[in-house]
Formats: sequence, structure tokens, C-alpha cells
Amino acid sequence: MLDANAKGVYVIAPTPFHDDGRVDDASIDRMTDFFLEAGCTGITALGMMGEAPKLDGEEARAIASRIIKRAGNTPVVIGVSAPGFAAMRTLSRAVMDAGAAGVMIAPPSSLKTDDQIVNYYAQAVEAIGPDIPFVIQDYPLAIGVVMTPGVIRRIVQDNPSAVMLKHEDWPGLEKISALRGFEQDGSMRHISILCGNGGLFLDFECERGADGAMTGYAFPDMLVDVVKLSQAGKREEAHDLFDAHLPMIRYEQQPGAGLAVRKYVLQRRGIISSQAQRKPGGAISATARAEVDYLLSRLAKHDPRAGKRIG
Amino acid sequence: MLDANAKGVYVIAPTPFHDDGRVDDASIDRMTDFFLEAGCTGITALGMMGEAPKLDGEEARAIASRIIKRAGNTPVVIGVSAPGFAAMRTLSRAVMDAGAAGVMIAPPSSLKTDDQIVNYYAQAVEAIGPDIPFVIQDYPLAIGVVMTPGVIRRIVQDNPSAVMLKHEDWPGLEKISALRGFEQDGSMRHISILCGNGGLFLDFECERGADGAMTGYAFPDMLVDVVKLSQAGKREEAHDLFDAHLPMIRYEQQPGAGLAVRKYVLQRRGIISSQAQRKPGGAISATARAEVDYLLSRLAKHDPRAGKRIG
Amino acid sequence: MLDANAKGVYVIAPTPFHDDGRVDDASIDRMTDFFLEAGCTGITALGMMGEAPKLDGEEARAIASRIIKRAGNTPVVIGVSAPGFAAMRTLSRAVMDAGAAGVMIAPPSSLKTDDQIVNYYAQAVEAIGPDIPFVIQDYPLAIGVVMTPGVIRRIVQDNPSAVMLKHEDWPGLEKISALRGFEQDGSMRHISILCGNGGLFLDFECERGADGAMTGYAFPDMLVDVVKLSQAGKREEAHDLFDAHLPMIRYEQQPGAGLAVRKYVLQRRGIISSQAQRKPGGAISATARAEVDYLLSRLAKHDPRAGKRIG
Amino acid sequence: MLDANAKGVYVIAPTPFHDDGRVDDASIDRMTDFFLEAGCTGITALGMMGEAPKLDGEEARAIASRIIKRAGNTPVVIGVSAPGFAAMRTLSRAVMDAGAAGVMIAPPSSLKTDDQIVNYYAQAVEAIGPDIPFVIQDYPLAIGVVMTPGVIRRIVQDNPSAVMLKHEDWPGLEKISALRGFEQDGSMRHISILCGNGGLFLDFECERGADGAMTGYAFPDMLVDVVKLSQAGKREEAHDLFDAHLPMIRYEQQPGAGLAVRKYVLQRRGIISSQAQRKPGGAISATARAEVDYLLSRLAKHDPRAGKRIG
Repeated sequence: MLDANAKGVYVIAPTPFHDDGRVDDASIDRMTDFFLEAGCTGITALGMMGEAPKLDGEEARAIASRIIKRAGNTPVVIGVSAPGFAAMRTLSRAVMDAGAAGVMIAPPSSLKTDDQIVNYYAQAVEAIGPDIPFVIQDYPLAIGVVMTPGVIRRIVQDNPSAVMLKHEDWPGLEKISALRGFEQDGSMRHISILCGNGGLFLDFECERGADGAMTGYAFPDMLVDVVKLSQAGKREEAHDLFDAHLPMIRYEQQPGAGLAVRKYVLQRRGIISSQAQRKPGGAISATARAEVDYLLSRLAKHDPRAGKRIG
Repeated sequence: MLDANAKGVYVIAPTPFHDDGRVDDASIDRMTDFFLEAGCTGITALGMMGEAPKLDGEEARAIASRIIKRAGNTPVVIGVSAPGFAAMRTLSRAVMDAGAAGVMIAPPSSLKTDDQIVNYYAQAVEAIGPDIPFVIQDYPLAIGVVMTPGVIRRIVQDNPSAVMLKHEDWPGLEKISALRGFEQDGSMRHISILCGNGGLFLDFECERGADGAMTGYAFPDMLVDVVKLSQAGKREEAHDLFDAHLPMIRYEQQPGAGLAVRKYVLQRRGIISSQAQRKPGGAISATARAEVDYLLSRLAKHDPRAGKRIG
Repeated sequence: MLDANAKGVYVIAPTPFHDDGRVDDASIDRMTDFFLEAGCTGITALGMMGEAPKLDGEEARAIASRIIKRAGNTPVVIGVSAPGFAAMRTLSRAVMDAGAAGVMIAPPSSLKTDDQIVNYYAQAVEAIGPDIPFVIQDYPLAIGVVMTPGVIRRIVQDNPSAVMLKHEDWPGLEKISALRGFEQDGSMRHISILCGNGGLFLDFECERGADGAMTGYAFPDMLVDVVKLSQAGKREEAHDLFDAHLPMIRYEQQPGAGLAVRKYVLQRRGIISSQAQRKPGGAISATARAEVDYLLSRLAKHDPRAGKRIG
Repeated sequence: MLDANAKGVYVIAPTPFHDDGRVDDASIDRMTDFFLEAGCTGITALGMMGEAPKLDGEEARAIASRIIKRAGNTPVVIGVSAPGFAAMRTLSRAVMDAGAAGVMIAPPSSLKTDDQIVNYYAQAVEAIGPDIPFVIQDYPLAIGVVMTPGVIRRIVQDNPSAVMLKHEDWPGLEKISALRGFEQDGSMRHISILCGNGGLFLDFECERGADGAMTGYAFPDMLVDVVKLSQAGKREEAHDLFDAHLPMIRYEQQPGAGLAVRKYVLQRRGIISSQAQRKPGGAISATARAEVDYLLSRLAKHDPRAGKRIG
């Protein structure tokens, strides 16, 4: 079960499809194996970048189960954000029964005030049950809901099953410091903070007190290394590795277009078989593909993983 | 099957729950019977005011089937708006198999440009299949997506299965005139236009060329009468009846709070057993209840239906 | 100077233009005189419905001064919402020097959290100075900023110069009750609450504890009467008069389109010379004009003012 | 006068203030001189990052005049976005009289449809006059208005005085390609495209056909070099220089927080005297300052300008 001491990299798993849009089970398995070999301490599936809303209920449960089983002892978090609590409850109970470590809940974009956000999480916990550990997803850029540090504190203090923050506010460094400050002044219990946003600020997020990353860059093996180097106090080495990847991280982090880049690189690395997305989804243009190839060729000078296929 | 000649009142059905949140089948039956007796020419279920997002997939299908079966030859439209096309397809095929007359599709709030809206409907039709007649739901106030008359025309011209507009832009009278103008100048084929917005402008909407209403005021029997009077050219009588209800229509049309009012009145009229909503949902305060009672007592002087229980 | 005991109707003044877009001083004077004769206890100028953003700085100050001077002892509130505090300060100081009773400040739409809203008002007061009484404009439908009753209480308690709420949340009746409840439980000092939203709920707003209206319906004389009747405990008479106007109130309250309706009716009543708006602005179509004429003819049966020209 | 052949770097000028909030004229002069020495081909003042909304009308005109005069033959573009056309016209005529090369206009966030955007620019041109060259500012992340390439084409084709696009859509590379494609297929006349977004994609934007940058990174001298190298076909050198700055570019490009970073670095470089912003404005925390210092120390290894003070 997920708890507030989680650390490292919980990689956001994309959902591999065949070119015709069917779910690609073989790629799911290969990708899951790769994540474990890369040193990921956890996997998060069926998030926004997992194209979760494009799956129907049965598909979603089948994918979750497959990854959970394949991952063995490695904890798997499942995104269960839904337009209503009935669907959220149904999926949450199903994936926990299948062995998930916890679930992740984003606020709906309709929430406008501090109290509405706090109440929403109270009702979500009532719906799924207080026994399921959950991750608060804080992603204003995509969702439009802004949670102050004080609101996150209220959610954490009100709900013992809130164990982790997927931090992807932007800008967000001061928010990490504020939350860790709340822990130090005793006004909030400790939670795990893993950072998203494609890793764009991972170098400093670790230094600010984050426990690692929960994001989906096409080189999760690099994310693992940066977090380890940073936690080991090897600041210069962490930044050197991070900076070598930054041109690519930046390119992949483009809203909307980024998933096509990610899937293209994962395919090029031999991790998934097809870069296909379900509709509505972006495709990568020939020019963009050439730009990514160029970035990878430059990256390969610093990090040989950028030039090789897995397996 | 729903077609472009539909007229009259397609009442938006709420979903009756027991006080404990379970779906209330007996109330569904009684409500359906009442709608038919009231002269509704169709029923629309699982819309926003039907608390559709709060149902899980099985519940949604069961409610749709129950209403369809009970309604007999009266056409039933089912709302199938969903965060993704897989779920939209699954629900659409299921309800059409169960005998639905068509489905209703609202655009997701993420759409920003004319082309994005047009493409979305093209993809939705590809997902559900071109054989299912569908209703375009145009509800900017709730969804935030603004469709110009030109965009609606593009959707209609591109997709033969687009047969109806649920018109609830606000303000919206000029939009009806613009669309009927397109039909007259030959640039758009004829579609049915039924109006929503709680009926707040039904008096003039009919005069502008709408075919009737698709909305959910607690007196659908009044909506039926206003549409009939207007179509029969009895302008003064239509406005007299409408104006008598307007204080109540206005009260019920309050965003968010309105559904609690509607369910309270439907319960008071003896049509459903409980005014309960699933969470997150509003409740009506004691003061608001007294205000509604007062409005009903005033209304009863003009329309005796406001003072009586059904059955 | 405006204070927390203000009551009655502060009519929202439109800005009269000539057909060619120049400010129409003669109409300003005639309109101001009419407002006083109609029994308005105050006037609010340069609000959103006053097309304030379409005026340049000099024009704004000239209009404000003209109305203030003409209104004599009747208090005039000036809208000073601005994209920045420097412009807000400049305009505020200028209109107070010219004799304004206070200013009105709406939050900018960029504010997202409770704290941001509270801080914004603190900075606004710092900018204009603590000696200028101000009105909090709470208009989520147009602005997108939602203030809970708790946030309004924080603004009131933090800033002694906050003396009035222009209440136009929608729905909003429970908000009035909540704020008056804060006054009763001692957690908030008393402020004046005047209601907007075109008067669409004025009948019940008065009963909930509002002190009157601050809105711009083309019959402010009716608003004055409804507030008086309600405050005198003549409930039935208040509702009878209100209900007679409701079809027209509803028509005029359409976002965007409403100002064209209002100016058309004010012109028809002989109060302003032209219905022109500055760009970007709506015009009323021939069909809409006929609809308004029809509504006025029906209204005249109940309220003879609807059939007559002033003067 | 600005025309469609503009190239290079039009640096976005911040507005320097003293610590107490007064405009700092000496810093304006020093900064302007630095921009010219750095090789900027133009300067853009009173944009969003110039804190334009925080200035009152007189201040805005004085700052514009000062920069224009100091810049001599170097063209200066002035941001004139305003809530209404009267203020836009007043400022536009004033700055053109003072010698500005053109003005920049962003769409207001209230625009929702393609036609509304196109009409807005038509009305803006009518307001300021067709003789003033203008820049279309396309910045959806900050403004929320999404212009398709087709909409930009309509604005360009409708308005001969539209000579430049400030391109800061995100993602935006495909938009540059689409617009240049319109020029090649003859459906749109040529315009200058200068890119914003803090330069985060400048490396590829130049390769896609942009003419340079219009943005405000604290090292405009680097932007100048990257554009020159790219235009000279020295791809590797352009990317090497760009990549060295990317960790800092990324840090400075954080919405909201970024201006505090930029002003801090400009102060550290000796270009402006104070990092103060007018309220509401962000300040840089001690931790963030240390992070910036660290980034600059790493950058200085590749680009000695990061370690030195100007003058």
C-alpha cells in the first residue's frame, strides 16, 4: 500500500495502442519490464498522459490489472479521476482488488473556491472509502484549479488516506518549500511529494525537498539517476545529467503535442511498438520528428542511452 | 428513430433517487407515465440535469432501458457525452440496441476554436457510427464552448446524422433566426430546434422558429401548452400562460441550485418520491422551500395545476 | 460619503452616446434628472453597463463630474475597476475630488484563490487610500471570480472602508442570508447590500435582507417601488408589480444583448436621445425591437409607465 | 515605420522602477543603451512584461517617449492593448506622434469564436487608424484566446497594416510552418514573425521560418547571437549556445514568477538599478535567488557574459 514515505520515480505510463487503436498488451508488458529495469520505484497508470478518458471501463480495468500483475512488488498507482463519484468508486474498488497500491484523484475543473476543493476531496474519500491511499493531483495548467499550500494542508489534515502530492503546479518551487515548511512548523503531517510537469524543474524540485518524480519523460532511467544523484548530494553531477536532457525534456513537455513526442521516442527506443494515439490525439509531423531525431543525436554525445535501442 | 422533423416538448428527465442515493425505479416509472400524460412528444434522459455523470456505466444503461421501455412509442433521446469516444461509443450502441431514438452529444469544454468544434463532432460520429441520429447540445453557459451559427451549419452539413439542435445559448433568440435564415437561403438543410435553458425564453423561441422545447421545468405540462398555443397562433394566450409561470421558471433556472428546486416541486406534485440528489449536489434550504411554496401559491391562482398533486 | 447604511436603489447609469459615438451631455443631464425624480437614492456610473472600458481617461472623468454635479445631494458611486492600481488610484482620487460618494471595485478575472482575492482588495485599498469608501462588486457570471461569503467577510473585516456589496452572484439568495447571518453571529460588521443582475431576483433579495438594488433596468422607477413595497411589508403588492415587469426584466437581462435593449427602452421612454453604443457593442435587431415593443404593450396593461414617454 | 520585413531581436523591455515604485528614468536610459549595444534590431515597450497595466496614462506615454527618443533610429514598438478602443486610440496616436515604429495589440480574453477575433482586429484598426503598423500578439497561455493559423491569415489579409506576428502560442512550431506554408501557397501575404515565450523554443523557431525573437530574456545579447548563428546556417553553434542558456531560460520563463527573476538578473548584470516591481507583483525568494546564482555560475562556464557586470 502506498504511504507517505514513497520516494524515487513513479513513472507515468502511457497506454500503448496498436496502429488501429486496439490496446497493445505486448507493449504494455515490455514497457512495464523496462520501467522496473530502469529503477523506477513505482508506476502510475491511467493518468491524463495515459489517455485514460479514451478507454472504456472494461479496457481501463484490464490495463490496470495487467500492469499491476506484471509489476509484482513494485507499487502501481491508478488514476481514477472521473466526472462523478459512482464511476470513481467503481474503478477504485476494482483496481485495489486487483492489487493497486493506491489511486490518484484530480479535482474537476468546475471547482472555484478553496472550500469547494476541500469539500470535493472529502466527498471523494467518502465515495471510495477511507481505506484507499490516494494521491492529490495538483495540475493547474491543465485543469484550471489552483490549490494554495493552505488548501493542500486542509486536504491532508482532513483525510488520513491522503499520502502523496503529485506536484505539477507551474511555477511550483515555492509551493514545495511552503509545504515542507508546514511540516516543519507542525501544522501538516508529512506526505510524499513527487513532481510532474515532464520533469522540467526536477533538478531544483529535489533540492527543495521533493521526494522524486511522478512524470512521464521518455527517459525515466534519466529521471531515476537525477533523483539518486540529487539525494546523494552530488549536485553538479545531477545538474550536468539533467541539463544534457533539458532540450529534449522541454520539447517533450509541450502541452498536447508532447505525448506524440513521448510515444515516438519510446517507440524509437524499442519500448513500445507503435506511437499511435487514440482520437482525439496529436500526431508528430515529419519536421517535428526530424527535430526530435536531431535532439537525440545531440543528447547521445552526453548520454549514450539516447542513441541505443533497448534489448 | 429521431429525425429532423421532431416537434413539441422533449422533456429533460431528472434521475430520481431514494434518500439514500439508490436509483428509484418506481419513481422513474411514475415520472415517465406523467410525462406521457402531460403530452410530451419525447423524453431526454441522462443529460446534465439527469445527474448522468454521477451514475456508473451499468446504472446509466439500466435507467435508459427502463425509461425507453416504459415510454413505448414515444421517442427517448439519451445523453452520451463522455470524456472519451470509447465510452461514448459503448453507451451509444447500448442504448440504441435498447430502443433509444437517438443520442445527445455536448462538446467538451476544452474546445477553443471553430475547427476544433467541427472536428470533434466529426470524430464523435466516426466513433458512434453514422447510423445513430444525434442532437447537438449547444450550452455555452454551462460548458464554455461557443458555437456560432456558422459552426452549427458546418456540423449539420458535414454529418447527415445530425438531426436536432438542443438550443440553449444565452442570449439565443438571434441564433434561432440565423439558423432558420440558413435554411431559407439554402445553405443548411432543415433540422429540428428544441430549446433549453429551463424554458426562460420559450415564449419568443417558438415565435422565432423553434420547434419546441427540450428542457426540464417542473411543469412540462405547461411547456406543452405554451408550444401548442404558440404553434396554433394564439399568441396572447401563450404569453399569458407563460408569464404566469415565469416567476417560478426563473427561480428554477438558477444554475446549480435549480435542480434542487425542480426535484422539490416534482416531489410536491407527487411525481417522484424523494428530492434527493447524489453528491455533489445542492439541497434546498428551508427559506428557499418557503419561497418556492409562495411562488406556487401565487401561480395556483392562474394555473390550478400548481396547487394539486398528480394522481 | 457612502456608508454601510445605504438603502434603496442606486441605479446603474448607462453612458449615453450620440449616434456617431460622441458622449451625449444633454442626455446625461436628462437621465440624471429622471433618476432623481424616479426616487433613486443613489446613482452608480462608469460600471460595466456604463461602457466604462470604452471611454478614455478624460472622458471618464468628465462624465463622472457631470453626473455628480447634476445629482446634487444624491450620492454617486463611480466604478474604478482598472487593469492596474495606478490607473485605479488616479481615477479614484479624481472622482472623489469631484464629489463622488465612493467608488466600486471589481476583482480582475485572473484571481483564482481565496487569498488572491483578499490580497487584491488589500492592495486596492492601499492604492486608492483608506479614506475612500468602496463597494465590492461580486459578479461571477461576468468576471469568473467566485467569492464565498467567507471571503467577503474577510474583505469587510480587513478594510474599514468597505461599506457596501454590489451583490450579483447567481444564484445568490443564500449568499445574502449567509452574510446577514455573519452579522447576526457577530463575525462580520454590517454592510449595505444592494443587488444587481438586472433585478431578476429583487423580489426575494429584499426579503432575504438586502437593502435594495444597484442595477440598471430601464424602469428604475419600478425598482424603487418594489424596494419600498417590500420594505413596507406589502409582500403581495411588491410581487404583483415585480411579476408584471418580469417578462421585460428577463428580456433585458440577457448578457451582452441586454444593454441594447435597455438603451432602446430608455430612448423610447424619452430619457436618452440615442440608443447607440460604442464599439464593440451590440445592436438590437428589428425582430428583437418588435419583441420588446410587444412586451411593453403587455406591461402597459399593468403599469402605465410602460406606455408613456417621460416629459 | 515597422514593416513586414522586420528581422532579428525586438527585445521586450521591462519597466524599471525605484524601490519605492517610482519610474526609474536613469535605468530606462541605461537599459535602452544596453539593448542597442547588444545588437537588438528593435525594442518593444509597455507589453505585459513591461508592467504596462500598472502605469497610468501619463506615465505610459512618458516611458514610451523616453525609450523612443533614446533608441534613435532603432524601431520601437509600443504595446497598446487596452480594455476599450478609446484608450487604445489615444495611446496609439500619442506614441506614433512621439516616433514609435508601430503598436502591438493583444486580443481581450473575452473573445470566444473565430469571427469574434477577426472582428476585434477590424474594429481595433478602425479605432487606431489604418496608417499605424501593428503587431498581432498571439499568446494563448496568458490570454486564453486561441487563434488558428486560418484566423491569423484572415486578420492579415483583411488589414494591410498588420505587419508582424508576435508568436507565442505554446506549442507553436507547427503554427510557424503553417503560416509560412500559407505564404508559399499564395493564400497569405508575407509578415514578419518574431517569437516570444521567453525564447524557450527559439532554436527551432528560427529553423521553422521565424524572423527572430520578440521576447525578454535577461540575456538579449544571447538571443541576438542565436538568431544570427541560425540565420547564417551555423546550426550546431546556435544550438550549443542556446542549450547552455536553456536551464536559465526555463527558470526565467515561469509564468508570474519569471519577471522577478528577469529583473534580478538584469540588476545583477548592472543594467537596471532595482529589481522592484509595482504591485501586484512577485518578489524572488532567497532560495530562488540562490538557485539563479547557481544557474548563472554554471552558465558562466559556457558564456562569460553570465559572470560579468556590464560597464
